[in-house]
Amino acid sequence: MTQDTNVRISLPAVCFVWQIAMIILFGVFIRYNYESDTHWVEYMAQQNITSNIENDFYYRYPSFQDVHVMIFVGFGFLMTFLKRYSFGAVGFNFLVAAFGIQWALLMQGWFHSLDYTDGKIKIGIENLINADFCVAGCLIAYGAVLGKVSPVQLLVMTLFGVTLYAVEEFIILSVLHACDAGGSMVIHTFGAYYGLAISWVLYRPNLDQSKRLIGSVYHSDVFAMIGTLFLWMFWPSFNSAIAYHGDGQHRAAINTYLSLASCVLTTVAISSVTQKKGKLDMVHIQNATLAGGVAVGTAAEFLLTCYGSLIVGFCCGIISTFGYLVLTPFMEKSLKIQDTCGIHNLHAIPGFLGGVVGAITAAAATPSAYGEEGLIETFDFTGNFKNRSPNIQGGYQAAGLCVALVFGIGGGILVGLILKLPIWGDPADDACFDDEAYWEEFCSVKHFTVCIVFTFHFEKMNNLGPSFFT
Amino acid sequence: MTQDTNVRISLPAVCFVWQIAMIILFGVFIRYNYESDTHWVEYMAQQNITSNIENDFYYRYPSFQDVHVMIFVGFGFLMTFLKRYSFGAVGFNFLVAAFGIQWALLMQGWFHSLDYTDGKIKIGIENLINADFCVAGCLIAYGAVLGKVSPVQLLVMTLFGVTLYAVEEFIILSVLHACDAGGSMVIHTFGAYYGLAISWVLYRPNLDQSKRLIGSVYHSDVFAMIGTLFLWMFWPSFNSAIAYHGDGQHRAAINTYLSLASCVLTTVAISSVTQKKGKLDMVHIQNATLAGGVAVGTAAEFLLTCYGSLIVGFCCGIISTFGYLVLTPFMEKSLKIQDTCGIHNLHAIPGFLGGVVGAITAAAATPSAYGEEGLIETFDFTGNFKNRSPNIQGGYQAAGLCVALVFGIGGGILVGLILKLPIWGDPADDACFDDEAYWEEFCSVKHFTVCIVFTFHFEKMNNLGPSFFT
Amino acid sequence: MTQDTNVRISLPAVCFVWQIAMIILFGVFIRYNYESDTHWVEYMAQQNITSNIENDFYYRYPSFQDVHVMIFVGFGFLMTFLKRYSFGAVGFNFLVAAFGIQWALLMQGWFHSLDYTDGKIKIGIENLINADFCVAGCLIAYGAVLGKVSPVQLLVMTLFGVTLYAVEEFIILSVLHACDAGGSMVIHTFGAYYGLAISWVLYRPNLDQSKRLIGSVYHSDVFAMIGTLFLWMFWPSFNSAIAYHGDGQHRAAINTYLSLASCVLTTVAISSVTQKKGKLDMVHIQNATLAGGVAVGTAAEFLLTCYGSLIVGFCCGIISTFGYLVLTPFMEKSLKIQDTCGIHNLHAIPGFLGGVVGAITAAAATPSAYGEEGLIETFDFTGNFKNRSPNIQGGYQAAGLCVALVFGIGGGILVGLILKLPIWGDPADDACFDDEAYWEEFCSVKHFTVCIVFTFHFEKMNNLGPSFFT
Repeated sequence: MTQDTNVRISLPAVCFVWQIAMIILFGVFIRYNYESDTHWVEYMAQQNITSNIENDFYYRYPSFQDVHVMIFVGFGFLMTFLKRYSFGAVGFNFLVAAFGIQWALLMQGWFHSLDYTDGKIKIGIENLINADFCVAGCLIAYGAVLGKVSPVQLLVMTLFGVTLYAVEEFIILSVLHACDAGGSMVIHTFGAYYGLAISWVLYRPNLDQSKRLIGSVYHSDVFAMIGTLFLWMFWPSFNSAIAYHGDGQHRAAINTYLSLASCVLTTVAISSVTQKKGKLDMVHIQNATLAGGVAVGTAAEFLLTCYGSLIVGFCCGIISTFGYLVLTPFMEKSLKIQDTCGIHNLHAIPGFLGGVVGAITAAAATPSAYGEEGLIETFDFTGNFKNRSPNIQGGYQAAGLCVALVFGIGGGILVGLILKLPIWGDPADDACFDDEAYWEEFCSVKHFTVCIVFTFHFEKMNNLGPSFFT
Repeated sequence: MTQDTNVRISLPAVCFVWQIAMIILFGVFIRYNYESDTHWVEYMAQQNITSNIENDFYYRYPSFQDVHVMIFVGFGFLMTFLKRYSFGAVGFNFLVAAFGIQWALLMQGWFHSLDYTDGKIKIGIENLINADFCVAGCLIAYGAVLGKVSPVQLLVMTLFGVTLYAVEEFIILSVLHACDAGGSMVIHTFGAYYGLAISWVLYRPNLDQSKRLIGSVYHSDVFAMIGTLFLWMFWPSFNSAIAYHGDGQHRAAINTYLSLASCVLTTVAISSVTQKKGKLDMVHIQNATLAGGVAVGTAAEFLLTCYGSLIVGFCCGIISTFGYLVLTPFMEKSLKIQDTCGIHNLHAIPGFLGGVVGAITAAAATPSAYGEEGLIETFDFTGNFKNRSPNIQGGYQAAGLCVALVFGIGGGILVGLILKLPIWGDPADDACFDDEAYWEEFCSVKHFTVCIVFTFHFEKMNNLGPSFFT
Repeated sequence: MTQDTNVRISLPAVCFVWQIAMIILFGVFIRYNYESDTHWVEYMAQQNITSNIENDFYYRYPSFQDVHVMIFVGFGFLMTFLKRYSFGAVGFNFLVAAFGIQWALLMQGWFHSLDYTDGKIKIGIENLINADFCVAGCLIAYGAVLGKVSPVQLLVMTLFGVTLYAVEEFIILSVLHACDAGGSMVIHTFGAYYGLAISWVLYRPNLDQSKRLIGSVYHSDVFAMIGTLFLWMFWPSFNSAIAYHGDGQHRAAINTYLSLASCVLTTVAISSVTQKKGKLDMVHIQNATLAGGVAVGTAAEFLLTCYGSLIVGFCCGIISTFGYLVLTPFMEKSLKIQDTCGIHNLHAIPGFLGGVVGAITAAAATPSAYGEEGLIETFDFTGNFKNRSPNIQGGYQAAGLCVALVFGIGGGILVGLILKLPIWGDPADDACFDDEAYWEEFCSVKHFTVCIVFTFHFEKMNNLGPSFFT
């Protein structure tokens, strides 16, 4: 009951030691790549590049900034819906992401950007985007355990999450040579199952002791809508950020735009039809409207067709909203998985579907539809993979999905066991979802409490109510 | 009094049926254009395009994302100022826009992007921007009826609004060959008069029964400033998003930037000078500061000159603020037009002025100022229009403004009559501006009510007040 | 005590007169440059430019919009943390910036963009960015006096601030030929010391009369996090916005990204380790996390190296957080400098450090590291400066830092004396930090007051408390 949430030693220690380790590792390994180095001007002359605008920076920087907003404002504010956990939502999201992007630059660098001539990782704008992507996986996982873990646990979760991510990404993208521009498999499926597995291991049977703090207040829901909207608006940038230059990025943005639009309408439809008086539930609007972006991730740069994108969004809005209505309570009661933000409905199912859609779309690709050159470029059928056919590619896409699942669930269970150790300063069951555990006292908490006390009092008195105003 | 706001059948039905219709129509009509298709690489070879950066995507995508933010966060949050209608403001804005952009892609596509060789609409990034623009017109109209209509009515309003928009846009831009890069006429004049006409038809004589909910609370005003600022900041992108590549986009951004800056100062001046103690009114700051962006829309890519832009903003700040002070109350009392957000002051008048400024600037254009080539490019004096003179162009610009007005008022009256049917689940007069009608109960409402009750109580007691603190 | 905050004459007068002056000066001086003028198409032909994408607009517009967001949403919302000064924070920030960017276009134009052939200032997108930068300096200064000055004083502060900025910028960048892409010296050091000097002159010995309003409430802290995050996320754009095309912009973005990430971890570490139970302080998270972006400004486009950026962020997070813990109270008590937002810790120290880092990095530059051409391009060793060596450049960088300091402190004292005149309508000591002074009454203020009253009452009663819920 009186569990100790004091992190005065562990949190600073972890932050300091890990940050110093980052500095050392960056010093040993990380260098600018040819596009961000001062030798770029010589490189241009060598390669007959006539204009600075050919620097990858100009192809990707606007998308990068949009992705950056999704990571820090999007994910951060989406989780502010709880009435007394807004600081933890935005603040720990900030901390975790800031550490995660550094570690991701190293981990992904070793696998993808290592220059074997000098043993250095050469980074440019695309690495920054990939680091943001990698962190997105860990932030998704945070959604499952929101309010129930300490910041130290979150940092540990991120350390292992980024590591696992880099390995599964390498296997899926490089070994299996699957495509996953928007990360339905690599980011969403992996991240969601990673978080759900951790939440399952950390199951708290007496969590209803803090049920007074589960749920939102009016303004916390409006704050959460800031997160929802920035995620929704910038998702086309997310799915197109590392797609191929030219038509690849262009098409990925269009497909995502359409899928998301479609998803909103079916979310509203299901939310309304399942409530007694047809009223809408803010939880659905905040979350299920985003499922279309998740599910179109893998296939975003394929010829999914415009109506195909709409169909994906259509289905995901329905499935995701039903998930919030049916699956989340079921999982909590029967499977003992407490999923604070419902990431199973927003990331796990749509991510899985996205992987399946990607596999089908890839398998159905034909040279007549894509053009000979277009087919080769879209699926990168070059080098060792130049004889691969779309059918086979579909199979490898499906294999990639399985890898993401295995890494998510397996890694989550292992990391969950580590996080179960009683050394991390996590809150007691009756102190969950409360910023007081990890944030300095703020004057409004008592004010807030008193107002709620009054509410209780006055509900018992019958002579007061809305009629009072008229 | 006990009007039924149950939309449990109508809302899901409309969402489902329309979304399925969208999927079918997209399947029949919508395809990727040559810049978003996998054949782009072949097209490049044919046309001797040497670099992917020439894809229109890279010219327009950053502006597109800014416009997207304006539509969803800008318009959505601008309307959150009401103390208990923030969910409706952000949520219905989201729903309406998500449907509208799909329908707009079709309607605008039939008029502007139809490929007559195969009967398909070919879409790319510019179509997405235009769809966002089209939806902006409907969201402006939403501002006039905010809090007084059901989501089903809003969807119907959007269906007809987008249709009318596509027709008037075709007449103004293609038939009359008027220019309107930032949509002063096509978007703002049309949208505002469309909304005002609907509000006039739906006049509620007993709306003061819910006057306790008209007005803001402290934090709802801060939320609304999020909307204001994102609209204000990204308006240069709005006005330049579909301007001509190169100097056209560049100049449109500069002109808008300047007009908006100027507008802020005169808004503050009028707001202060008209209040007893020189205090500022948040309503003016939230709205009239944006009028400069509206009014510079048509002429943004012309040689309006930098000081011309400042003058436009200067005048609009004054006119718009006086509109809030004088016109809105007058219109409500005498013209029976209840305009919740004051769109008459923010969009109708500045939009009209923008059309006039555009006509004058066009008529005053000379080859010496623009350069021969510049004149042709700016006004697109090519093809059938190659012999048109700037003077004549000015006349056609003015004609375009009339078309926007006629479509707005005429269309609004017709659609208003449809929306007057007693089948749409709109709220009773005493239940307007209240999220309770269409949103699941949230714990804070009662809390909120109780606090207001206390406020009333304590105002009657004289022994409590700010002196209590000292 | 009953000081008059009536600005009904002064505020509108200043706004009107200054805006009219802007229009006249713009009419006389400001013109479009060759990239935003309709003659661009002819210019392209002359210069053999083959594509519109070579227009500087496409290199800088995405960064410009990010900077614009930082100025209006970033700075504005960062200052909303006070419980009852959110309107003043966002609203006056808006007013000041809107005036400042116009005046900055003129002042900076005279020094940097004057075309001597016709005596006109030719503006393009880079001038808009520089105007935003210039205003940033004044908004930093606003942070020191937040809640204690009238809007008229702020406008006067901005008028002089922009003027001083343009002069010191000219001396540092043109005369001394120092580099300062992200403005550690030119913007942050100058702006912070300008504000601190003003605050020192305007010292209020009895400010604790309004101490009930110093501090935040729960939701005002969440609003402030919006400001923090948009500043944090878009800082890479800030530091790269006017860097050299190509690798310069690319590298500046990477360095800033890394420094900021590192800064978050050390901020959290120090915030936690210095509180009794290891809890985090929202003030530190909101502010000190940004210090890394400030300190990497000057050296952002140099070969600072990736680990060098991490080290800069590492140190700044520590120093800045200690600043909030130790220096701010010390400065208030001993130096009589009341620094509402703690700009000394967020801008002054990190800005100074940034200047030092820049000088060292420049002095350490070698042709072998940068490449011959790269060295010349990075430091612009051309024209009169073609024989300058990196060592000498380091000295000039240091000299630039001194210029920024002198202008900041000297200018601030002078402007402070002007602002001390009893004609500006500033609030009495017991009415500071209160929106009521300059904003129309909003219903929630009384509600808010009453709730606080209740809080006081109930704290005295022992039979109520959190246990009430269980």
